[in-house]
Amino acid sequence: MPPTITDNQSHDFKAHYDCAHRSSLQDDETDDAYVKRITRYSDGTVKLRNSNIELMDQDILYHLALGSESHDLQEMFGDVKFVCMGGTPKRMENFAHFIMNEIGYKLPAGTQLQDISAYSYRYSMYKVGPVLCVSHGMGTPSVSILMHEMIKLMYHAKCKDPVFIRIGTCGGVGVDGGTVIITEDALDGQLRNSHEFTILGETIHRPAKLDKKLARELKSLASADDPYDTIIGKTLCTNDFYEGQGRLDGAFCEFSENDKMAYLEKLREHGVVNIEMESTIFAALTHHAGIKAAVVCVALLNRLNGDQVNAPKEVMNEWQQRPQILVSRYIRKILTHNGQLKSLFGHQGSIKSPRRFKLVQQESQAHE
Amino acid sequence: MPPTITDNQSHDFKAHYDCAHRSSLQDDETDDAYVKRITRYSDGTVKLRNSNIELMDQDILYHLALGSESHDLQEMFGDVKFVCMGGTPKRMENFAHFIMNEIGYKLPAGTQLQDISAYSYRYSMYKVGPVLCVSHGMGTPSVSILMHEMIKLMYHAKCKDPVFIRIGTCGGVGVDGGTVIITEDALDGQLRNSHEFTILGETIHRPAKLDKKLARELKSLASADDPYDTIIGKTLCTNDFYEGQGRLDGAFCEFSENDKMAYLEKLREHGVVNIEMESTIFAALTHHAGIKAAVVCVALLNRLNGDQVNAPKEVMNEWQQRPQILVSRYIRKILTHNGQLKSLFGHQGSIKSPRRFKLVQQESQAHE
Repeated sequence: MPPTITDNQSHDFKAHYDCAHRSSLQDDETDDAYVKRITRYSDGTVKLRNSNIELMDQDILYHLALGSESHDLQEMFGDVKFVCMGGTPKRMENFAHFIMNEIGYKLPAGTQLQDISAYSYRYSMYKVGPVLCVSHGMGTPSVSILMHEMIKLMYHAKCKDPVFIRIGTCGGVGVDGGTVIITEDALDGQLRNSHEFTILGETIHRPAKLDKKLARELKSLASADDPYDTIIGKTLCTNDFYEGQGRLDGAFCEFSENDKMAYLEKLREHGVVNIEMESTIFAALTHHAGIKAAVVCVALLNRLNGDQVNAPKEVMNEWQQRPQILVSRYIRKILTHNGQLKSLFGHQGSIKSPRRFKLVQQESQAHE
Repeated sequence: MPPTITDNQSHDFKAHYDCAHRSSLQDDETDDAYVKRITRYSDGTVKLRNSNIELMDQDILYHLALGSESHDLQEMFGDVKFVCMGGTPKRMENFAHFIMNEIGYKLPAGTQLQDISAYSYRYSMYKVGPVLCVSHGMGTPSVSILMHEMIKLMYHAKCKDPVFIRIGTCGGVGVDGGTVIITEDALDGQLRNSHEFTILGETIHRPAKLDKKLARELKSLASADDPYDTIIGKTLCTNDFYEGQGRLDGAFCEFSENDKMAYLEKLREHGVVNIEMESTIFAALTHHAGIKAAVVCVALLNRLNGDQVNAPKEVMNEWQQRPQILVSRYIRKILTHNGQLKSLFGHQGSIKSPRRFKLVQQESQAHE
């Protein structure tokens, strides 16, 4: 079976497309083995499912403000093991500082983190040693552009077996605000476990599969001491926040509260625990690229109780740290296992004494 | 005929939905008259097609960091006549400064423009008198969220007959980089002049109609002296930049260059002159809200010649000003016609002599 499923076989391009896949599958080869063979070189570095790229003089990653000939991408990004993505530049900048502290990564004296993609004016990217923190905007098309360029970046940089994790926010379905939700399966608006693509005018579907083992591993890192729940469940991915998620408070609403509640109940019966706007494309493109991936979100509200996001800012800020904490535990665990974590406890960067550091700062300011 | 078309009538929600529309249409009422009646109060202020909003204690425009009870939205935005939108915060900040100069709008001494939605970390919004400049991110879902909240903002602020204009970038189809393109019709990936919505799990389409008269008026403001062409044509709206636009240089490519060229030729034969990622939702939601709207983009390349966006940054920056220039001519024309433009020529803000201003600045810096 080819790893790509299609709606119907009537069209030339699609017939050609499927045929090319079937013929690529070697005797007795499983889908997983097939994907691994076409997405990895023998040393584990990322191989592209697009032979055009290696024939190009240069590859401009336009929306990242990077290029294969203008930048030494291997020198800059060759050590990346984890690509963490989230909606807003601010959240990813916060995560970069948080994970820096968590893994005890030390910047050279006199340096600070810089937004690597600042000049694209589209996405923000921060690098903390093996962790890349990137904003992806809102909705599947914005994520799609980023994923193409991030996967190409992994290839140009010769990254080995990178893991992609989306750190997001969502609406809970029968789940309280503040709950951390790990996505088991990403479903589209018709509750299909796939993402629909329109390529050369034809509609195809690719499975929106995430790594189940990674999801379970993340779940195992939730602590009984966490003052909140961490659960695994199905995630609905929509193309809109208002009508598309059954909200009554958009600029338009052409259904009743009863229609809405019946819909949310139907979702719940189907195992859906949260709703967001990015998971199917994130799952479909990482799976197609043979990249291990997970989606970890925090619920900002329980949609069975309402539509408006109105928890106080401080509460929401604390909630948004929760998926970051879980992901940082995972990254620390992997780095520790690989012997790459220099210091797990008590690392303070260049500051030997916080008390004296503050005194020196105050003294300095007084003489300005 | 109801102003909303649907795919099939089999489902309860959809039957109810259509029925509600048909019964709303009064005898001999045209679609346009119907839409005007349900989207405008008699004084021209914006009326919502959602009766839930007026029953709510407060309406939090979450992604704009504004609220109907936390902010005096009528005081802040009641004078808005033009809502200009574009992809990046940077472009819209530039446009805000540009239009301020073009319409001779003067800020009070000691003030500067502020990003009104800075604390949302999602969109950026700048206000220059009657002109609101807002970034919408990339792709239709991101635009969808913004449109819902902007239309609700127009309602809360009691704005009268606002005009929405998207100022974008695009790929040209048989059209050179630097050409300004006004969208006649916005088409989806299947070349339908509509946008597909999934609401409560059901698929519906809404017409992606823009204001033809406004498009012609914008075209008439192109000058024979402009060192570039300004054209009107059909715009293809896609959900991806790479595979979705037939590019050979994405992380994946499962079609040949011949397939790609045949597809682009097919688009051209269909009257498509450019490809971008936002027009159908922008057209569908403004049309549904009875708001006059236009899309003006500049082509960054001719897709018949290649896929990569590689014009020098300075050239692209100059190109991106071109739609802004056209839109500013339109805004000046309307404000002049309404007697709202205080000074068309030679307005210099608080600076009487640029030469002396510079001398004072230099003098001041020397004493720092």
